This record gives sequence, C-alpha cells and structure tokens, in this order.
Amino acid sequence: MADPALRYRTDLRPADREAIRRLVDGTGFFSEEEVAIALELVDERLRKGDDSGYHFLVAGQGGRISAYACYGPIPGARSSFDLYWLVVDASRQRRGIGGRLLARSESRMAELGARRVYADTSARSQYAPTRAFYEASGYTRAAFLEDFYAPGDGKVIYVKVLATDSG
Amino acid sequence: MADPALRYRTDLRPADREAIRRLVDGTGFFSEEEVAIALELVDERLRKGDDSGYHFLVAGQGGRISAYACYGPIPGARSSFDLYWLVVDASRQRRGIGGRLLARSESRMAELGARRVYADTSARSQYAPTRAFYEASGYTRAAFLEDFYAPGDGKVIYVKVLATDSG
Repeated sequence: MADPALRYRTDLRPADREAIRRLVDGTGFFSEEEVAIALELVDERLRKGDDSGYHFLVAGQGGRISAYACYGPIPGARSSFDLYWLVVDASRQRRGIGGRLLARSESRMAELGARRVYADTSARSQYAPTRAFYEASGYTRAAFLEDFYAPGDGKVIYVKVLATDSG
Repeated sequence: MADPALRYRTDLRPADREAIRRLVDGTGFFSEEEVAIALELVDERLRKGDDSGYHFLVAGQGGRISAYACYGPIPGARSSFDLYWLVVDASRQRRGIGGRLLARSESRMAELGARRVYADTSARSQYAPTRAFYEASGYTRAAFLEDFYAPGDGKVIYVKVLATDSG
C-alpha cells in the first residue's frame, strides 16, 4: 500500500508533546538526556510561541506525526539559523521523508530570513548515516571540535548557504 | 589610590539585574540585542537557579559590580562548558580584572565538572582585544565559521582544556 501523502504544519499543539516524545524516544537513537532536551524546546515553543526562538515543522501522515524538525534564528546572528532537531519516526525511515522535511524546513527558514543553516552532529560512527544525510543534502563541514560531547566524541558543524532569488 | 580588593560571589540577586544591564550597556561594546541576550540569561538564572544551566560569577569592589562572568554546561555534552559572557565595567578595564575573573571562572567550571571550556567570539576587528585576551589566557582557536554573525562577520570558537589533578 502506498504511503499516505505527507502533510506539513508549523503550529505546534499541546498534544504534540507526547507524540514527539514517543517519536524521539522510539528511534532508540537518543539518550534520556537528549530526549529531555528535545522536549524542553517543545515546551518553550508551546509556552512562548515565536518568542521562544524555536520553530517547528511537523510532518504528518494519516493523523499521526511521521517526522518533525525544530529550527530557529541564532541569537546575536543576523541571518544564521540553527537546525536543532530533525527526527523521523522509526517505522517511517528510509522513505525519503527526512530529505523532504529538510528541504521544506530550509524553505521556511529562508522565509524567516535565514541565509545560512547550521547543523551540529556527532563525529561518532553511530552518526555516520546522519552525516551522510547532511552531505547528500548540500551541507558542508565547517568545523570539527574534538572531544566536544565527550572524550572521543567530537562535534561536526555543518553549514548550508541557502539559495536566494537575488543569486 | 589602590583598587579595593575584588570579592567574588556566585549567588545572583534580583538587584544585580539592573547593575549588570548598566555594566554591559556601559561598555558601549554591545548592541541592544546583545544586551537583551545578556539579561535573558540573568532572568533565566534568577527564575530557575542551577536548573537554568547558567552559572554566574560576580566580581565586586567596594559594594559595586566591577565585572561578571556567565557560563554553564553545554546541553548534551558530558564535560564541556560554554563561557557565555565575561564583561568588565568600562571604568575598571585594563587592570587585570578580566584575567582574574576568567581564571576564577575556570576553577568554578572545573569544580562543576568542566574539562573543556568553549568561548565564541567575533572575527571582526572590534573584537581583536577580546581574541588577544583569550589567546593570552591559554585558549586556542578550534574553528572559524565564515559569515556566521553577518556577512563579513565570522565566528571564532576558542577552546581551553582545563588542567586536572590526575594530569
């Protein structure tokens, strides 16, 4: 059976909190602390709206959330955005949903004034697919910070310069 | 007349908010938006204490604040801290207060579990003294992110690995 079409929305609802918790936790990819950080951004968004600095793009299929992205302007920077989270439900992975959600997120960021998008990820082997995903999506390595997350676990900073109409 | 001795404290009080606003604003160095960001961290600290993730070290002389630092653990990282702010009152600069406050802040961070301290700053010429200050204090350039803050205004990420008793 073909996948139902993805539907996107940028409004985050209180009921999304639990759905996002399950989605992030269900990947088996993130630590308890990382899940808590993801939910902190959800809570900030629900409490303060745009003032939180966290924007969400939720991709749903057939009434449930298949993936979501969270991004926002970097405080103190004029037109640089941080892509904080992009997570696809474990049961929906490997269907191109992440790539479509990322492209849609970049369009939204450009509308919000972004010129550069930064995405941080770990240099650990567990994150090799994540790094390959960003590289295939036009992101380049801007920096590597040795032992950033923990001894032996460095941080890779990716950046993508968004296309503008003016060139 | 000799400077009165610096006294340090880590408890932030509601009355410090206005003193810190004046201190940061009074340097003439920071934009309105940057002053607002500095105060956001103060407000978070006053509201949530250690749970805010923002720790303060206030250096006072003769009943007024001469300088302050704000730092904290980087979410998701095991023993990396970010030095968010270190500001010396305009009328108290060039007396070594910044260096002493930084050394004291590093000791506090080490007590809180820090192994690496990161400090971000601008590559703009206005920040040449800031960069020289970090370099003289044992920080090394870990990364340069072109156009991060604005076109032509890149970010330099400094890092210092703190000494440990175990070597």
